Amino acid sequence: MTQKASRIVLASRPTGNAELNNFRLDHVVMPKLKDGEFLARTIWLSLDPYMRGRMNDAKSYSPPVELGDTMEGGCVAEIIDSNNNDYAIGDIVVARLGWITHGISNGVGVQRINPSIAPISTGVGILGMPGLTAWVGLNDILKGEKGETIVVSAATGGVGGLVGQLAKLKGMRVVGVAGGPNKTKFAVEELGYDICIDHKSLDVKELRAQLSAASPDGIHCYFENVGGKTLEAVLPLMNTFGRIAVCGMISWYSPKSMENASPIPVAWGAILRQRLRVRGFIIFDHYDRMEEFHKEVAPLVSNGKIKYKETISEGLESAPQSFLNLLEGKNFGKQLVKIGHDPR
Amino acid sequence: MTQKASRIVLASRPTGNAELNNFRLDHVVMPKLKDGEFLARTIWLSLDPYMRGRMNDAKSYSPPVELGDTMEGGCVAEIIDSNNNDYAIGDIVVARLGWITHGISNGVGVQRINPSIAPISTGVGILGMPGLTAWVGLNDILKGEKGETIVVSAATGGVGGLVGQLAKLKGMRVVGVAGGPNKTKFAVEELGYDICIDHKSLDVKELRAQLSAASPDGIHCYFENVGGKTLEAVLPLMNTFGRIAVCGMISWYSPKSMENASPIPVAWGAILRQRLRVRGFIIFDHYDRMEEFHKEVAPLVSNGKIKYKETISEGLESAPQSFLNLLEGKNFGKQLVKIGHDPR
Repeated sequence: MTQKASRIVLASRPTGNAELNNFRLDHVVMPKLKDGEFLARTIWLSLDPYMRGRMNDAKSYSPPVELGDTMEGGCVAEIIDSNNNDYAIGDIVVARLGWITHGISNGVGVQRINPSIAPISTGVGILGMPGLTAWVGLNDILKGEKGETIVVSAATGGVGGLVGQLAKLKGMRVVGVAGGPNKTKFAVEELGYDICIDHKSLDVKELRAQLSAASPDGIHCYFENVGGKTLEAVLPLMNTFGRIAVCGMISWYSPKSMENASPIPVAWGAILRQRLRVRGFIIFDHYDRMEEFHKEVAPLVSNGKIKYKETISEGLESAPQSFLNLLEGKNFGKQLVKIGHDPR
Repeated sequence: MTQKASRIVLASRPTGNAELNNFRLDHVVMPKLKDGEFLARTIWLSLDPYMRGRMNDAKSYSPPVELGDTMEGGCVAEIIDSNNNDYAIGDIVVARLGWITHGISNGVGVQRINPSIAPISTGVGILGMPGLTAWVGLNDILKGEKGETIVVSAATGGVGGLVGQLAKLKGMRVVGVAGGPNKTKFAVEELGYDICIDHKSLDVKELRAQLSAASPDGIHCYFENVGGKTLEAVLPLMNTFGRIAVCGMISWYSPKSMENASPIPVAWGAILRQRLRVRGFIIFDHYDRMEEFHKEVAPLVSNGKIKYKETISEGLESAPQSFLNLLEGKNFGKQLVKIGHDPR
């Protein structure tokens, strides 16, 4: 069986903001399966902020995507041919196939999905990498505790949305920051945030004033997804011995956005004076926690105690524009691309 | 007995760099001792970078010095009158009397010095607050381990000089950064640094290149005393999961110096990509560790295995200029002012 595939490749590297012409659709023919490999068709492609970093030709925790190569990404996929004894045709898996309609894997790093727990799209969402990120960040990095106040930026995003709900279940005071009234309303009414602040149209000082009013006991924990004015608003409000988990900094992923940032000593001074602990983390270091995460969170998703929201675009061709939207915060909840028919 | 005292008060707040006219010498008459108080004459005044922060009218971990008030500071002093049963005339103590020739204390926060261990000036130096800072920073904050590489900025200073020696005793590779050939030579030949880099006349890139060459296994730990170009040179060289202890940032204590600093995302990006742990600490939170610190380090100072260097200026009137020198790195080792006769 010869399988054709469509894919989105990195056509050029962004010089400032990422643009549509940095991407190109092309078509390939899949090679024949070797022993131990399976072929899968992509159903759901996950779009995530980290992908912006892969577009740069810069040393990071992972090598960049090479020009002409398929954009990287995690997918929910159905196995349609297999030379691997562990995976059978019809199995639904999470695999890093990339922005592509079909992919081949030898099974390394692949997780099987149990479709009876929740819709399979959650395999790259609340029960996948973004969910694990939220859970590890809150429990292992921030070590958030009952009675403490946590600020969550990108409060309704693929990661933040779960951070807020898990923090609430822990008995924390949960203050969100999000863009636009739909998101802040959703954060409070559906996700259970104590309060969620709309950062749009607020400058740093105004945002800080609202955060301060929302945090009468100060801020013990900050879950950092965005950087930018939210970080600068939060820093002086951090309590002595406060903790910051640096999970992402989406507002600073384009070089131009850095121009308005305060100089390092503003952050360094807060770290010193307030004796903060700031810790960066990358979820790929923490996959050993997946089993415990699932044990705790999957039942809560299954019985509806934990909620999630998805923004879905249709078809591989829509991925570049959806990704640009994500970088600008135009998504609402987890950004997904539906690549193929979902059989469930 | 009526005791007159001379003191240095804060005459005005610096608008940029601190200047001599921010200080003023004046004279006061000590009040009569109340029950439980003692009167002491200052022998040694310690000058430390944190004092620069106290000159600003800004919220910090301690309130600022008020205009017209005595500059704060730790002193080695001899008790010359006492209404306190725990302290007798002739006792040598460490007390926060300030920039003043005589002071009254009720004994709170006072430590008695055993003059048989080492010269009493060490009570505000290697066996006092700066020494404890070095020991806590290395052991409790950085948790430096044998075989790791540590970079120590202000490598021969009151704090850095001990950090380097203790790290060497632990079996770490110790790379120093200091200003001028006298200091770098001393760091290697006397303090045992593996290498010490003279940052003067180097820009960030040159300093980074030398640090990189000096750290073939990368940098596991950075003991931050200075901020500025040293931090910016170090950041990209930090190993994955590296730790930074933020103890001070002397090169950024004057507002003007911040102008050349890179924006926060440069630091935030390193923290994220390299999964760094950055922790600020203030030694006043860690005085419960004094006893264990003394138990370990006092014998090493006493038998000469741990060395220290002092820069001494004579007389209270010399304190302001000596302090300005300290801020510019013109001191060599611990900066002290000799206020009164040392009887030992």
